[in-house]
Amino acid sequence: MKGPGLDAGVLGVLPVRADRLDSPEAVDEWLRSVGSVERSRQVGTMSREKLAGFVSLLDGATGPELLGSVDPDLATRIVGSADTAQSARWLETVGTDEAAEILRRLTNSGRDKLLDQIGGPQAEVLREVLRWPPTSVAAHMLPDVFTVPDSITAAEAEELVRTQSAQVRGRARHGALIYVTDADRRLIGFLEFQDLVLAQPDQSVAELSSDDPVWVRPLIDAEQAAQSLLDYELAALPVVDDQRRLLGVLTADAAADILEAEATRDAERQGGSEPLEVPYLRASPLRLWRKRIVWLLVLFVAEAYTGTVLRAFEDEMEAVVALAFFIPLLIGTGGNTGTQITTTLVRAMGTGQVRLRDLPRILAKELSTGFLVALTMAAAAIVRAWTLGVGPQITVTVALTVAAIVMWSALVSSVLPLLLKKCRVDPAVVSAPMIATIVDGTGLIIYFLIAHATLPQLAGL
Amino acid sequence: MKGPGLDAGVLGVLPVRADRLDSPEAVDEWLRSVGSVERSRQVGTMSREKLAGFVSLLDGATGPELLGSVDPDLATRIVGSADTAQSARWLETVGTDEAAEILRRLTNSGRDKLLDQIGGPQAEVLREVLRWPPTSVAAHMLPDVFTVPDSITAAEAEELVRTQSAQVRGRARHGALIYVTDADRRLIGFLEFQDLVLAQPDQSVAELSSDDPVWVRPLIDAEQAAQSLLDYELAALPVVDDQRRLLGVLTADAAADILEAEATRDAERQGGSEPLEVPYLRASPLRLWRKRIVWLLVLFVAEAYTGTVLRAFEDEMEAVVALAFFIPLLIGTGGNTGTQITTTLVRAMGTGQVRLRDLPRILAKELSTGFLVALTMAAAAIVRAWTLGVGPQITVTVALTVAAIVMWSALVSSVLPLLLKKCRVDPAVVSAPMIATIVDGTGLIIYFLIAHATLPQLAGL
Repeated sequence: MKGPGLDAGVLGVLPVRADRLDSPEAVDEWLRSVGSVERSRQVGTMSREKLAGFVSLLDGATGPELLGSVDPDLATRIVGSADTAQSARWLETVGTDEAAEILRRLTNSGRDKLLDQIGGPQAEVLREVLRWPPTSVAAHMLPDVFTVPDSITAAEAEELVRTQSAQVRGRARHGALIYVTDADRRLIGFLEFQDLVLAQPDQSVAELSSDDPVWVRPLIDAEQAAQSLLDYELAALPVVDDQRRLLGVLTADAAADILEAEATRDAERQGGSEPLEVPYLRASPLRLWRKRIVWLLVLFVAEAYTGTVLRAFEDEMEAVVALAFFIPLLIGTGGNTGTQITTTLVRAMGTGQVRLRDLPRILAKELSTGFLVALTMAAAAIVRAWTLGVGPQITVTVALTVAAIVMWSALVSSVLPLLLKKCRVDPAVVSAPMIATIVDGTGLIIYFLIAHATLPQLAGL
Repeated sequence: MKGPGLDAGVLGVLPVRADRLDSPEAVDEWLRSVGSVERSRQVGTMSREKLAGFVSLLDGATGPELLGSVDPDLATRIVGSADTAQSARWLETVGTDEAAEILRRLTNSGRDKLLDQIGGPQAEVLREVLRWPPTSVAAHMLPDVFTVPDSITAAEAEELVRTQSAQVRGRARHGALIYVTDADRRLIGFLEFQDLVLAQPDQSVAELSSDDPVWVRPLIDAEQAAQSLLDYELAALPVVDDQRRLLGVLTADAAADILEAEATRDAERQGGSEPLEVPYLRASPLRLWRKRIVWLLVLFVAEAYTGTVLRAFEDEMEAVVALAFFIPLLIGTGGNTGTQITTTLVRAMGTGQVRLRDLPRILAKELSTGFLVALTMAAAAIVRAWTLGVGPQITVTVALTVAAIVMWSALVSSVLPLLLKKCRVDPAVVSAPMIATIVDGTGLIIYFLIAHATLPQLAGL
């Protein structure tokens, strides 16, 4: 017997590609040998025809397995390629949260047709989940959970859990924990299966149960809830109504999916473009253009004032053309300094390490650091100006300007992310291009003001 | 009975701050009400004296609980503030992987003193883990796991697991799964506790066990292993020797810690600075300076050639000073276009969506997108140049240059991350500042070459 060899997966030596599979058994073998990312990659890049052929090989076991592991957009395409009866059977077996993610992406009529086909209590549960706003934690929760009253013994609890498991098809639709309720069916604790196995049969559930479970209300933001699950190191986060009765749980898997999708969106915003929403290799040039062009134009318009600034100092540049040599270097250094600061701050805010009330400490820290950086960069600027042979006066101007721009950039980039947070704007939008745009024009004004003060040639202008 | 109200935690309304706590009971209450990030925040910003006072309130339950939840650097400071006997007791109760993370950060003598104090088989296990290279998965694994042979029944397995649990103190030191071995003690499958609970007592372990577990070798990179655990949606990833005998498991918690630390390092590199390695609020200005200045100087030196380029075109700028007006706008647009592309690509490579062999598809996609972007930006440039009143000839020069720089930047930024990957350099180092630096100077050369071709005033130069 051979393990599927994760080493092989990690090193990218994959036996068969999804588009060459020719039997349900080969699909099963393929699913055992590749992880979810590689599955999404291989299936996601198939043409419509290839996909239809591939989907026809899926059966009642491999269909749900694949749907549960690939990204929801691709899962929706797979469901769209299968006939209604078949996809309904798959959606019955896949987790409720994953089924809801797929159904939410379909047209109203497609969704209703599938839900009618699924029918019964399970369609009811799915309709219930679909009623919650998509950004709420309730929209991502698993409604089926094991619950036991605190008044019974471990042996009785095992029996009860076995009964509850038999009531719904497929283990995938249950959470990893067993929740404990009081006589009023309110959530008061939880058990791990491990606790039941390790307990003496006659121990009471009340004794085994962990008290004071952390819980959230259904309408709380899904990303916040997912972050909290990670933060509290929970296996699952219960969602309760205002009577503290259990509505469902956010599983660790669902939380990881939510956070991963958000991390990708944040990374794209940081790069100064709108989130792509689809895997990169499936994004058409037109979509890429649409997602990027808005920010490029906004930044272009914002940056355009540098032209106005430079035209205002046209006479100065005509008098001392060497001043123009340093424009890219000076504004580049200002942008780099600022980007370093905002990246660190945005990350620290994202992980909760830094809050609004830390602003004074951040400013003190960044301005002290900025001072050290300004001294170093001024020294570097002296060397550079000297080697360009522009004379001592311009050298002094450039060195002073570098120092001033570094300090100015440190100030702007420390305050801006926190200010945006205060205005309830996601600080992740403070991208390197945005900082560069702000610092570029203001940096040029600083440059020419310092030049005026230090260069006698400009005295009359 | 009141739940600890995660809503309160999420909204930041916290009852008591760690530095105001005055009894072991208050510490216990505080631990129940704040998550790991807030714990690290509050304890991490204490002065040495405050910390010593706080640590003296920790007991055999709250000490390990705190050590297991805060970041390893802070946990090491806490261990340093307690006396050896006390910290040894805490490290016995905390998970092996977390204890190893802390011990690895101590001086050799401090580590040996603690290990001697812990003593017994547990010190042996820790010494074993500490022998693995820190970046290997083995250095992060939990060595204690439940194992059962495949030849026994579910009831016998329950009994065996109960015995194994009694052999080591504290549940924290066991994985979440039960591993199944053959007669040669090789790993052949695994069980969830849930499977044991839901099984009939006389069912055989072989029948209940999931086959073909995914596994890794001990020396594989910890980050790769953590990514695979996420990718394969595993509760834990077994680490096996070359006989496929179980050495330990990488738990989902440990994997999440590894990936979170790496995500922070990546974010910092993307912002063009070295990873901080300590929480932001605890980093001194001198440390921040040291982490940032190297990249700033490298970028400064790299960017300095823009001065050489501009000096080479000094005559052109003296003849048509209006050319200088557009320098920041043109190089800014080139940088922005490139940053958008590299951010998307680096992220897609990080999550495994894009590989080296996709280069032709990426180039086709990015150059088509670049063409659309170039047309749009050229139109915007015409409007801008017109409003600055620089005349039709310079307007044409600027519009052509914008289009050319956009295409050039698209080419550079699509190839660079994949090229670095090929050279085994982490593509996350391709930061916005690096792209800007590459595109700035080359963009200026393009600018003045186009100006030469289109402006009759420059014909003689």
